Amino acid sequence: MNYPKLFIPGPTHVSEEILDSFSTYQIGHRTPEFSDLYRIVVKGIQKVLYTKNRIFLASHAGTGLWELGLKNSVLPNSNILHAVNGAFSNKWSIVSDKCGYNYSNIEKPWGKGIHPEDIDKKLSTGDYDVFCMVHNETSTGVMSNLKLISELLKSKYPDVIWMVDSVSSMAGSKIEVDKLGIDFIFASTQKAWGLPAGFSVYSVSNRLIERSKKIKNKGYFFDLEVYDKYHQKWQTPVTPSIPHMFGLKKTIEKINCEGLESRWKRHIKCAEYTRDWAKNHGQSFLPEESCLSNTLTCVKNDQKWDINAINMNLLKRGFRMDRGYGKLRGKAFRIPHMGNIYINDLINYLTNFDNVLSELNY
Amino acid sequence: MNYPKLFIPGPTHVSEEILDSFSTYQIGHRTPEFSDLYRIVVKGIQKVLYTKNRIFLASHAGTGLWELGLKNSVLPNSNILHAVNGAFSNKWSIVSDKCGYNYSNIEKPWGKGIHPEDIDKKLSTGDYDVFCMVHNETSTGVMSNLKLISELLKSKYPDVIWMVDSVSSMAGSKIEVDKLGIDFIFASTQKAWGLPAGFSVYSVSNRLIERSKKIKNKGYFFDLEVYDKYHQKWQTPVTPSIPHMFGLKKTIEKINCEGLESRWKRHIKCAEYTRDWAKNHGQSFLPEESCLSNTLTCVKNDQKWDINAINMNLLKRGFRMDRGYGKLRGKAFRIPHMGNIYINDLINYLTNFDNVLSELNY
Repeated sequence: MNYPKLFIPGPTHVSEEILDSFSTYQIGHRTPEFSDLYRIVVKGIQKVLYTKNRIFLASHAGTGLWELGLKNSVLPNSNILHAVNGAFSNKWSIVSDKCGYNYSNIEKPWGKGIHPEDIDKKLSTGDYDVFCMVHNETSTGVMSNLKLISELLKSKYPDVIWMVDSVSSMAGSKIEVDKLGIDFIFASTQKAWGLPAGFSVYSVSNRLIERSKKIKNKGYFFDLEVYDKYHQKWQTPVTPSIPHMFGLKKTIEKINCEGLESRWKRHIKCAEYTRDWAKNHGQSFLPEESCLSNTLTCVKNDQKWDINAINMNLLKRGFRMDRGYGKLRGKAFRIPHMGNIYINDLINYLTNFDNVLSELNY
Repeated sequence: MNYPKLFIPGPTHVSEEILDSFSTYQIGHRTPEFSDLYRIVVKGIQKVLYTKNRIFLASHAGTGLWELGLKNSVLPNSNILHAVNGAFSNKWSIVSDKCGYNYSNIEKPWGKGIHPEDIDKKLSTGDYDVFCMVHNETSTGVMSNLKLISELLKSKYPDVIWMVDSVSSMAGSKIEVDKLGIDFIFASTQKAWGLPAGFSVYSVSNRLIERSKKIKNKGYFFDLEVYDKYHQKWQTPVTPSIPHMFGLKKTIEKINCEGLESRWKRHIKCAEYTRDWAKNHGQSFLPEESCLSNTLTCVKNDQKWDINAINMNLLKRGFRMDRGYGKLRGKAFRIPHMGNIYINDLINYLTNFDNVLSELNY
């Protein structure tokens, strides 16, 4: 390994056996061997998401799925409600803007979660038919409570289409899609799935597929109807990234070996270990107490550590740390503990971090 | 290798050293090591395309670039002219339709090239400001003459935006983008670039970038302005498929070793070898004589060989053949000779093909 081990919250560390699967010899995407691979991957994802919904495979970044979700849900008279509590939820709202859609934002400070009362206040106006949120804000380490939001939506707004970006939580935190009733949920694979970037997966409710059929001028690349047509044949509409599919197959094997409940517990255990480490150093957290993420910890830099100096020293030791996203740079930093990061990887990283702190006389 | 060696025209055969590069350890996409990689890849592609135009890297199939090209060139009063002479040029026109744009098609039978007179007839009406064509129709093995088309456009229609799909010719056939004056040209990497699918590259003229700035509601994912903003920092707007970039770097090294002129000659030599082989068997070609492709040969099955039987036998021998695209299935079949296919690979394949023909008593 010539490059530093990744301790940034995406792309995350990829283990050797998954990387190796990326070198598998290629297969044609209109062959039976491809459909076998497709089926295994789709079934595996359904299990991870506790869903019978259709799962689609997208050979591009999750960013594209913000747009896909919108294009297949926004009717001419639609009005979208975006919950914005960080950089990525804000970007999703920008996508609505750049598509020329009608939308409003629930604006919450960075570090705050999205709570049912925030949503209720807006949806009770009756103005909105689509609601978009980010489950786990990668920029702030805030994980909102989907269960509470689901209860609100089911009881008071059952007709609102619910779309969830779970880019950095899917496969790292338990999300029971069918029980929650999420219409559209997606993730890129370079976060808790633990693969290289360039691929994403999404689950779609039947009613969203039906709704999509009513929408015109949604283009080709992001058209659910096109995806669905090929899905019937266990194929993708466009030539997919087959290396990523081999990688995903390997990851699913690993998830099945680990067991889902063990996987969720492992992520929580790693999160708790990281939080204890930070607290022992007199640091606090950017996220509010009830919304600490299972997959990454955003440490508020109360101790005013020189993050750039720490970064340089960790690089020398073979680790690439995160220095805080955007406006948080230096004021807060994130420690990812998802995907291929097991407790021993984390202990190793934080021990090195401690050594660097000593070197810098903290 | 557990899977048959690919002799379909995409995904094409990927050699072991390129596959190996896909297992390189991951790097962060906002790091200096990433920008180094990006720069090497972009410079390499510029050289292959003989262009100073900006090169962008897209971590998705070329299909997305049909839409990207349109979204960044179509003004509210635009009218697009599509040259349609096969399945893929037809699909590009369908994308215009699904986006709700104004367009017309030049309709040519499968097997025919796109000639200046076809285009002149339509453009002379003054109705069109965007012209889209496929250089090398993968469905039919037809390669149209870009030089003749360039002369027409330069002399009579210099204001028309010229967009070229070179999915199965770029990096396999000499395309001098700046000399030709192509505004937008793109390819997926699973054809003559010889990488796995899931990635594509494109070159954009300055005037197209300027034009894009005038266009509203083009969304985010396919917005050239977004790409261009990050390009200034040698980055991509969304997390890219880093394995593909390592692969592309390796391919560019191989291209530089081979030398561009040798590479074009090798493709022509392989094409000639294949054509001779077919003619010796009493077969002819689907494409008209002047438009035979350098990168794949579409053999018209005059001898009425049982293509399914040949396919089964070749599979047993470890090769996956093409059986003809769509409506041509069984009536014509394609032999790719691009990317990682060298003359010895081709001889080996066609020798096996001959043995199968003997087995089947042809």
